Amino acid sequence: MTIRRPTEHLPFGEKRDPRFFGVDILSVSQFKRDDLEKIFEVAHEMSEMVHRVGTFDLLKGKVLTNLFYEPSTRTSSSFVAAIERLGGSVIQINNVTFSSVSKGESLRDTVRTLEQYSDAIVLRHPEQGSAAEAAYAATKPIINAGDGPGEHPTQALLDVYTIGEEMGTIDGLTVTMLGDLKYGRTVHSLAKLLTLFDVRINYVSPLALRMPEVLVKEIDEAGITQHETTDLDSVLGETDVLYVTRIQKERFENPADYEAVKDSYVITPETMTHAKDKMALMHPLPRVGEINPDVDEDPRAAYFRQMEYGMYVRMALLALVLGKA
Amino acid sequence: MTIRRPTEHLPFGEKRDPRFFGVDILSVSQFKRDDLEKIFEVAHEMSEMVHRVGTFDLLKGKVLTNLFYEPSTRTSSSFVAAIERLGGSVIQINNVTFSSVSKGESLRDTVRTLEQYSDAIVLRHPEQGSAAEAAYAATKPIINAGDGPGEHPTQALLDVYTIGEEMGTIDGLTVTMLGDLKYGRTVHSLAKLLTLFDVRINYVSPLALRMPEVLVKEIDEAGITQHETTDLDSVLGETDVLYVTRIQKERFENPADYEAVKDSYVITPETMTHAKDKMALMHPLPRVGEINPDVDEDPRAAYFRQMEYGMYVRMALLALVLGKA
Amino acid sequence: MTIRRPTEHLPFGEKRDPRFFGVDILSVSQFKRDDLEKIFEVAHEMSEMVHRVGTFDLLKGKVLTNLFYEPSTRTSSSFVAAIERLGGSVIQINNVTFSSVSKGESLRDTVRTLEQYSDAIVLRHPEQGSAAEAAYAATKPIINAGDGPGEHPTQALLDVYTIGEEMGTIDGLTVTMLGDLKYGRTVHSLAKLLTLFDVRINYVSPLALRMPEVLVKEIDEAGITQHETTDLDSVLGETDVLYVTRIQKERFENPADYEAVKDSYVITPETMTHAKDKMALMHPLPRVGEINPDVDEDPRAAYFRQMEYGMYVRMALLALVLGKA
Repeated sequence: MTIRRPTEHLPFGEKRDPRFFGVDILSVSQFKRDDLEKIFEVAHEMSEMVHRVGTFDLLKGKVLTNLFYEPSTRTSSSFVAAIERLGGSVIQINNVTFSSVSKGESLRDTVRTLEQYSDAIVLRHPEQGSAAEAAYAATKPIINAGDGPGEHPTQALLDVYTIGEEMGTIDGLTVTMLGDLKYGRTVHSLAKLLTLFDVRINYVSPLALRMPEVLVKEIDEAGITQHETTDLDSVLGETDVLYVTRIQKERFENPADYEAVKDSYVITPETMTHAKDKMALMHPLPRVGEINPDVDEDPRAAYFRQMEYGMYVRMALLALVLGKA
Repeated sequence: MTIRRPTEHLPFGEKRDPRFFGVDILSVSQFKRDDLEKIFEVAHEMSEMVHRVGTFDLLKGKVLTNLFYEPSTRTSSSFVAAIERLGGSVIQINNVTFSSVSKGESLRDTVRTLEQYSDAIVLRHPEQGSAAEAAYAATKPIINAGDGPGEHPTQALLDVYTIGEEMGTIDGLTVTMLGDLKYGRTVHSLAKLLTLFDVRINYVSPLALRMPEVLVKEIDEAGITQHETTDLDSVLGETDVLYVTRIQKERFENPADYEAVKDSYVITPETMTHAKDKMALMHPLPRVGEINPDVDEDPRAAYFRQMEYGMYVRMALLALVLGKA
Repeated sequence: MTIRRPTEHLPFGEKRDPRFFGVDILSVSQFKRDDLEKIFEVAHEMSEMVHRVGTFDLLKGKVLTNLFYEPSTRTSSSFVAAIERLGGSVIQINNVTFSSVSKGESLRDTVRTLEQYSDAIVLRHPEQGSAAEAAYAATKPIINAGDGPGEHPTQALLDVYTIGEEMGTIDGLTVTMLGDLKYGRTVHSLAKLLTLFDVRINYVSPLALRMPEVLVKEIDEAGITQHETTDLDSVLGETDVLYVTRIQKERFENPADYEAVKDSYVITPETMTHAKDKMALMHPLPRVGEINPDVDEDPRAAYFRQMEYGMYVRMALLALVLGKA
């Protein structure tokens, strides 16, 4: 997390938050609690403005490069919507591997070229550490939109923001994470970010897909109470937020092990009858069977609203990083 | 065709047409004659505004998702131009099959995700019924930009609008359709939409590619006079609108049958000497030899203007559906 | 270079330069010295506006089609940034070969369709002469963004503009071109364009990759002093602008010949110690080893700024061609 020197003159009366202006968004670990509170406060203002006027000209004059080395339509579209609703423009670069910038050119050179045209770069890249490498080379802010097995900080931020918007608070809640907790980058980042709040976390997974030891230890050291089980029923009744992730067959050495567990981790309308009346059912999407579509109309099903919240969080980050919030 | 509840407060003085506001555009059969008259009236206003100022801010604040599961640069570009000339923004998603939204995700989930970011979705999909399926799932309006062998209603609308703009009227005209009338989705939709007017229709095709019986019957029941022939010369002199489509070799079981007929359906400058002085030569494009390029400079050649009219019709639909016309 | 009739009424007080308004940008040979001076003057104004306000509405109301038959992310992004920073919109069409416009459709028809939607077309196409073909068919201006082994005039313009901005002048300079001078389209166009100025040109290349005879003769006839060598050291000390290009292994019949020369044409920090204190090191990018990244922080390394200058030159061309500069 680099604090950069302002490259523009600050118009009289404009306020820039030095915690964000010109800063790269690389990892959830760069945020303190009051950083999150600021982001969420701005995100909430964004949602109100979008409901009122659709788009507005806060970032008029700014051009964002959306540099995607691997496809991620959901994330890419969310950033496009975010910059457009703020009155800015976008240079969209998909599938860089098929394009000329990849003709043996280093990520460093690509980023240094594109920052000549734009005010910030959103980077999706399959290799861990690529976002940090880009940030090191660039003078304009880099926003990490996923660097392979590394981080995807805007996903974790939108997850926590969703919890706050759906439940009215984050402190005091019990969050249950379900599914593949071993390989799921999403739940790892979410758990880390939740250490900034007063929460209790349950992990529900097959034994083969448990939350990694090292992460459980890190979260424990932050003073968070954690509980592990293979049985959703045993914790569902106390759960305020149920965060579901996909269990991929390929993760199991023995296919029979997959068949044995897969049904116990599918959310159906029947499952929801055992859940609290006020709770939030979340999923990073896409889903492929983990939540039965019959659950979609349940008012507790928050996963599509989660996508909408994501746009507001990305609007907030863009505005903060570009010094306009 | 679903009438939706307004999701926004209506600013004082703004008028919304309940026949269009929030409505899905799925099929030509959803339109009555006065619907078309409204669309064409707005489209004409759009053309005047574009000629005067290029773009204007009628849909400022609106974001359109252009969701294309198969490539169609012509249609996609036309919608991009339409929303941009109205001051709105676009999320462009091409080749979904290569992208992450297709990772086993249902069309329903993809659409419900993208509508969180945008105000309407234009959908191109290879499967018949997909637009209706998307409209069922979505709360925002869906515009069908072609669902495989199903419908492509904006194409038919622009075809009829072109006739009106080129000829000054639609009632009283003789429209001759030429080429592959069996498989051509375009001529089927156009013929259906023309039943709302007082026209006479000629079909000119090889015997193997005749207009389907069931459609001829449907159009007959609407009180339209139809005439079938294999010989263009026999009807060319009375034709006000000649609508040419492509004849694909692959449609013939016997290649010799194709060779025997192909030349009789190619429009050349010589053909045009037998046509009326005031008439319109149309083609949905792309063409691959059905109309000789030497015809392009003939003032009756309307097929490139037809593309321009298409943009105005799409501008009109977007404005009507989003409650701003 | 075609002078076109204005298609719009000229608002009172607006000035249009008839040398540019509605004109196709096809080749460096269409420009005279005072044309370049005008383009560079406007480009410089563009840079000042971008530094002051980021984007502005000079081309509000205009839609540009970016029609790329082969990928060129760098050039494409530069034009996207240019039109967006001028308040216009873009229809982006990548990889036409995978898309529907290529379904056997002629370039002529594709261009005549797209100009219905837009005010100008930037064309990248692998075949020499394609830009001229498109310009012949179109009524809207065509900007050649590379037609295979043909021309890439906006690259040459930005190269000369870079020299002027970096050195304060062009007249009186010694420009040294290094690398593959035989196949490099970039250096050919640059050398041609430099004949409009009072410069001296050195060519440094392996014998197998010398500047073509015919070009050397053409430039000589324009009164330019040229000097050829295989040895960079012999001319480095007198060089004001060192323009480096890539040497591709595949260009050598005998791989040993490549191995023998490749290192003598790599620029390192050590090389720069022998260069003038005030000089500009340029490269069209991407580079793959011709300039060591350790040189990047040298203030004389101008290749990333060269990308930025490219955006201003493209902004200037768009504004001039669309009659707004």
